[in-house]
Amino acid sequence: MAVFTPVRTAELAAFLGRYAIGTPLALEGVATGIENTNYFLTTTHGRYVLTLFERLGRRELAFYVGLMAHLARCAIPCPAPVARRDGGYLGTLHGKPALIVSRLSGAALEAPAAQHCAALGSLIADLHTAGSSYPARLDNPRGPRWWREAAASVMPFLGARQRARIESELRFQSASRAMAIARGVIHADLFRDNVLFDDGRISGVIDFYFAGNDVLLFDLAVCANDWCLADDLGLDPAKTRALLRAYDAKRPLGEAEHAAWPVLLRAAALRFWLSRLCDLHLPRAAELVRVKDPDHFGDLLRARIAAGADLPWL
Amino acid sequence: MAVFTPVRTAELAAFLGRYAIGTPLALEGVATGIENTNYFLTTTHGRYVLTLFERLGRRELAFYVGLMAHLARCAIPCPAPVARRDGGYLGTLHGKPALIVSRLSGAALEAPAAQHCAALGSLIADLHTAGSSYPARLDNPRGPRWWREAAASVMPFLGARQRARIESELRFQSASRAMAIARGVIHADLFRDNVLFDDGRISGVIDFYFAGNDVLLFDLAVCANDWCLADDLGLDPAKTRALLRAYDAKRPLGEAEHAAWPVLLRAAALRFWLSRLCDLHLPRAAELVRVKDPDHFGDLLRARIAAGADLPWL
Repeated sequence: MAVFTPVRTAELAAFLGRYAIGTPLALEGVATGIENTNYFLTTTHGRYVLTLFERLGRRELAFYVGLMAHLARCAIPCPAPVARRDGGYLGTLHGKPALIVSRLSGAALEAPAAQHCAALGSLIADLHTAGSSYPARLDNPRGPRWWREAAASVMPFLGARQRARIESELRFQSASRAMAIARGVIHADLFRDNVLFDDGRISGVIDFYFAGNDVLLFDLAVCANDWCLADDLGLDPAKTRALLRAYDAKRPLGEAEHAAWPVLLRAAALRFWLSRLCDLHLPRAAELVRVKDPDHFGDLLRARIAAGADLPWL
Repeated sequence: MAVFTPVRTAELAAFLGRYAIGTPLALEGVATGIENTNYFLTTTHGRYVLTLFERLGRRELAFYVGLMAHLARCAIPCPAPVARRDGGYLGTLHGKPALIVSRLSGAALEAPAAQHCAALGSLIADLHTAGSSYPARLDNPRGPRWWREAAASVMPFLGARQRARIESELRFQSASRAMAIARGVIHADLFRDNVLFDDGRISGVIDFYFAGNDVLLFDLAVCANDWCLADDLGLDPAKTRALLRAYDAKRPLGEAEHAAWPVLLRAAALRFWLSRLCDLHLPRAAELVRVKDPDHFGDLLRARIAAGADLPWL
């Protein structure tokens, strides 16, 4: 938990008075989430999550809230924003933008098996399919442009070897970027802790606040680097194939995507290496985030570079 | 179950291909519902109800589907329509309009207690509140105009005493109808079997296919005549007060509504008496509905007339 905005009972009552969400029964602070304040809210109508946004502006928020509402109505198991009596989704609580979404059941898996990777692949295909009819647009906020900005910000804190690696990878990605492969809305942060399972099935995909328009295959690359990771930082072939085949069964992957796969696995490693480096060296004020070790993603990038094109595919 | 449209596997696969609803796991016909064909559909994403519409036209359907989508996004526990990949809700299956909605947990109560009546009153207030921002409009399809048409159709089958009672009540209702009380979207069919409870709380309100714009208090009158019924056909004072007070706590009821209460209880009895008489005397082709005895509502109307203004209120 980073910032934690306290909410008084009277504030909450006034806020909830603008909804038809039932009578509140319980409000409980949630000690997770890096950039927002989250509460579990229980009312006579059901279980919800109330989020106060600390970082995102109204424009980005409108994109994310609209995206979740769109995906939820397409039956993607994701948090469904709750509308207020005036029809809008975003309210203001304690002076901050605030949103209520449905609370999903289930729990994240620490050690997913191939069958879970297959379930994830199938769901990502559905998510990309449903996303294709979402009319709004937002460039992936952690895409290539952000990589360059983040690299420039963090360079002064790094040693010569790390700087050289990052610069080299930025050049490689830049040279490889003109890939003519399918683009659309991606989640872009599908780590294990953002996917809930219940009784062996995916009950929810959460945390859409890094989503945006980018190469669809990037979502699979982020997943593979986390869900299919072998002890030697390589990709477990069975899990990777399960992920990709289940996806391919719903949205067929082409030759161009096969060719781009090693590039995107490297891009996914780079993106999270850079954000971990920023978290470590450029912490924002008032943040109490437990900083995660950036080296994992630096090592991952080296492993992907070393593998060349020798990576599991369909 | 009335009409039952069979669906072949290939038809279903083609139909579901237009959704991002996951992989189908099971489809099971539901032996309830008077006018539509319902299936329970289970996919990797969750549990749904697939409905093929036999009676309603596209215009009415659009109103109902939009209403459920609107209420669901306002956190009213009701079936949430699932959008197709093209963004629309209604599809075509076996040549008929077809819709997928979320399947709600819980079960109807046979013998609700005062606490359940209170939960219902509170929920109806939320439903009316949320309905006030729904932009579409449809006059209650079983409102005063329909009463007159239904009465005219069924009169030839009735004895002189029943005819006289109906004519008298139609005159009374007509004379009382210019009530200046709140109107809006009502469910209009909130019998016990359309409200699901789970663990003592309302988990779902279903079957919106008689909803429309009418006097809000009519919803409470339909409920009171069913949920709060005493053995002598009077209204149980504790249950009726629980229903009305919980509603009033969220949407205050005024003096005009108090005055209209006896009129609307009679109107609710008349409306269901007439539809039961039509079901009995004018059955539609291909319907295998188990016809319910109309006399209950005829007796109820007499009991309400006999009570005059002596009826439980807040």
